[in-house]
Amino acid sequence: MNGKKVTFDDIAKYTNFSKTTISRYFNNPDSLTLKNQEIIAQALIDLDYRENKVAKILANGKTEFVGIIIPNLYLHYYAEMLNQILSSYEKFGYKFLVFAANDNEAAERRYIRELLAYNIEGMIVLSHTIPSRELASYNIPIVTIEREDQYTSSVNTDNYMGGVQATSLLYKCACDVLIHINVDVPKGIPAHGRIQGFLDTCREHRIPYELLLKDLGNTYADNQRALLETAGYLERKYEKKRKGIFLANDTYANMLLNALVRLHGSLPEDYRIIGFDNSPISGEAVIPTSTVGQQIDKIADTAMEILVAQMNERKKRRPSVPGSPVHRVITPVLINRDTTRIPAEI
Amino acid sequence: MNGKKVTFDDIAKYTNFSKTTISRYFNNPDSLTLKNQEIIAQALIDLDYRENKVAKILANGKTEFVGIIIPNLYLHYYAEMLNQILSSYEKFGYKFLVFAANDNEAAERRYIRELLAYNIEGMIVLSHTIPSRELASYNIPIVTIEREDQYTSSVNTDNYMGGVQATSLLYKCACDVLIHINVDVPKGIPAHGRIQGFLDTCREHRIPYELLLKDLGNTYADNQRALLETAGYLERKYEKKRKGIFLANDTYANMLLNALVRLHGSLPEDYRIIGFDNSPISGEAVIPTSTVGQQIDKIADTAMEILVAQMNERKKRRPSVPGSPVHRVITPVLINRDTTRIPAEI
Repeated sequence: MNGKKVTFDDIAKYTNFSKTTISRYFNNPDSLTLKNQEIIAQALIDLDYRENKVAKILANGKTEFVGIIIPNLYLHYYAEMLNQILSSYEKFGYKFLVFAANDNEAAERRYIRELLAYNIEGMIVLSHTIPSRELASYNIPIVTIEREDQYTSSVNTDNYMGGVQATSLLYKCACDVLIHINVDVPKGIPAHGRIQGFLDTCREHRIPYELLLKDLGNTYADNQRALLETAGYLERKYEKKRKGIFLANDTYANMLLNALVRLHGSLPEDYRIIGFDNSPISGEAVIPTSTVGQQIDKIADTAMEILVAQMNERKKRRPSVPGSPVHRVITPVLINRDTTRIPAEI
Repeated sequence: MNGKKVTFDDIAKYTNFSKTTISRYFNNPDSLTLKNQEIIAQALIDLDYRENKVAKILANGKTEFVGIIIPNLYLHYYAEMLNQILSSYEKFGYKFLVFAANDNEAAERRYIRELLAYNIEGMIVLSHTIPSRELASYNIPIVTIEREDQYTSSVNTDNYMGGVQATSLLYKCACDVLIHINVDVPKGIPAHGRIQGFLDTCREHRIPYELLLKDLGNTYADNQRALLETAGYLERKYEKKRKGIFLANDTYANMLLNALVRLHGSLPEDYRIIGFDNSPISGEAVIPTSTVGQQIDKIADTAMEILVAQMNERKKRRPSVPGSPVHRVITPVLINRDTTRIPAEI
């Protein structure tokens, strides 16, 4: 589409800036005023300037591409994680080729093949279907987030600490019994730590507890039905006892809260509720709901740091032999809102 | 990293499949059983097979890249739109380089330059900062979604129709007065249609109405404070009248609903509420809230269809001169939930 090659000289002449200024625009644009940036940007358009990175890639083999495979963007957790990873462009300059896998293992393999065909330098995997052993066999730098990670480097929330934080807060609310509602998360998955953190904290404080691990269904309507049933069960079994309920995520917590508010007009005094994730719903709920917040910005940043270090190693003339996978955990943050009020009489 | 080139012959020998089967795996994988796909996928790993698309690109100039610029992924609307656009890989095969612009005009220009440097074939722009006239001057196929679009092809929700649908439903609820709460959306922006649709419908039915257009702030807390104030204002001004309130989005609708439920223990009989977007919050609210749903899947699909047609045109030996921008509107869908109940006495 473009004709003869436009040089920095041409741009300098056209704008009356020096070549140094033009060069600064390309290497450190924020060192120029916004107005001068705009003048140069307009000149690039007027002159039809095109940098050609594809030619460069062939010359030096560095695509500056990182592949991302996310399970979906429906859950706010994944959307925000992707947002944070994309933002790292400002810091590291890597460009992101993104695929949404939607739990389809065969599709995910095709996406990875496609990414490899474009000579990506590394990959961040948030989806769950492909075993880490297989991921590792692709023999490129990979960091996984919050999934089975035996054979890959990974960054995860300290789920155990999150479970301890949530359970300790409920304990401080002078509850008579603590309940954890979750699905039966297998031990290899980081989120299993929430269950263990709950159990250890209850036992440490010698407080009565109940662990409700069951399939809550795969749709919003199924989840809602399951939690309405659970609410009824708890009302009957623990009548007049103060119930401290730790739910596996904020969506479940909101469903339970809504069921109770619709029944009673407000959250009854004998309930305390906490979720996990600090999703928007926890703040937007009819009663702002306590939760354990994941530091998504730190997780994304740490993942990119590990990945960039591994990618840089590959670019050395004599890369060192890759060592064992690196596993990093990021501490979650307890967010104390209106559903974990400490009773006045205490 | 890989040594000698692995051929289809090598893969066929290794797996005991025919070369035709291997070829089908690459061109139409779903014509094979999942088991056979897995066997071949494993063989590709074992043999360290790498397709090299970068070399192909240099040969034929087709990168199969589409650039996407989104404002953010915080709003569910953008996250779901991105999800749907990414899913179009299955249909069209284009790969997506994604940038989140976060309302930074200078950053956005840098992203576009970066995308052009990778010879993207086309671009989908959802961010708002760069005028469509400038986008058009980049001289590549571009489709914009739900933003100013005078000089670019675009796909938008039929916002006017959405305004009419929402207002008509409130009218059917036998309201005494209809109220629309929004910011003062300029006329060039597609979402302005919601205001016009409200006005025209109120006038057509000769029903009293009030248009509340004001700055509601930029943070969740600001929005919430503004809507709490508005709720107080409406309670005083329209006491004992049935108020039908159409809010610009589901987040605002949820804030108003929460304020009323906290005050009264439930949604009072003299209120009817409807939002816009069918965001998750509308279904997750303490009382499932009526809304106007945007058909995000259709919008994404239509955007890709327009873009692919334009990109294909460019690949012809004699591309026709680009005509005027194409503008398509997608009809929204009214979702009638619990906040727009028609009174029993009617």
